[in-house]
Amino acid sequence: MNVYFSCSLTGGRDDQPVYAALVNAMLAEGHQVLTAHLASPEVMAEEAVIDAATVYQRDITWVETCDVVVAEVSTPSHGVGYEIAHALDRGKPVLCCYRAGTRVSKMLIGNNTAGLSVRTYRDEAEAVSLAKTFLRSLATSDR
Amino acid sequence: MNVYFSCSLTGGRDDQPVYAALVNAMLAEGHQVLTAHLASPEVMAEEAVIDAATVYQRDITWVETCDVVVAEVSTPSHGVGYEIAHALDRGKPVLCCYRAGTRVSKMLIGNNTAGLSVRTYRDEAEAVSLAKTFLRSLATSDR
Repeated sequence: MNVYFSCSLTGGRDDQPVYAALVNAMLAEGHQVLTAHLASPEVMAEEAVIDAATVYQRDITWVETCDVVVAEVSTPSHGVGYEIAHALDRGKPVLCCYRAGTRVSKMLIGNNTAGLSVRTYRDEAEAVSLAKTFLRSLATSDR
Repeated sequence: MNVYFSCSLTGGRDDQPVYAALVNAMLAEGHQVLTAHLASPEVMAEEAVIDAATVYQRDITWVETCDVVVAEVSTPSHGVGYEIAHALDRGKPVLCCYRAGTRVSKMLIGNNTAGLSVRTYRDEAEAVSLAKTFLRSLATSDR
């Protein structure tokens, strides 16, 4: 499947190792991850040289053409919240995952929109397991 | 007009004085601010006792029924990003304002969606002026 992976950039990069683990696991499962570069430790420097309008147009096009969104939501981010809403409004399945114990917006954890799953994980391995299970369940339901 | 004022809760409350100035100014201009309570210093304690599903349902209903969204976006927030996208997807006018010099997501500052205005301010007075000018321009264009 074509996966849009969504994570914090401007809001903070403390969870970058989990982002990398998630992206690597999805690639290893054979999925195309449109935003694989967002998991790189160097992404802030790479994206800094691209003007905002270009980044917006690239990312919103990917959100609109992907099959599914996988979002890591431990770190608050306007961009991630925006992408989740835009995807759900277009009927895309969305997985939001975050570290257990983190405070996350009630607009996500209280959200009952069809197609949205919000899950917690304790470590990288569990985050990866959540993403794999979510994507496999979609592949199965498509049959 | 019915204004949905959107600001960070879980993501941080450092900008609460600006939120209060914005809400008070819009009320003084005769607008109804559906989310006026979000500008209160006590809102975190007040909202903590309401379950997430109730907050989500209340807030998403307000986003869908308001005339316009005014969002303060200096502090990253999934909920604020979500509400901005949901409002724009329904054709609502949205003002995003933030302190000059703050780094804000390119999904907002690079966003060319019709109806969205993104502006910086230097102090509370300028933030208030932005909101008043934005709301008056909508009232004029409605005539």
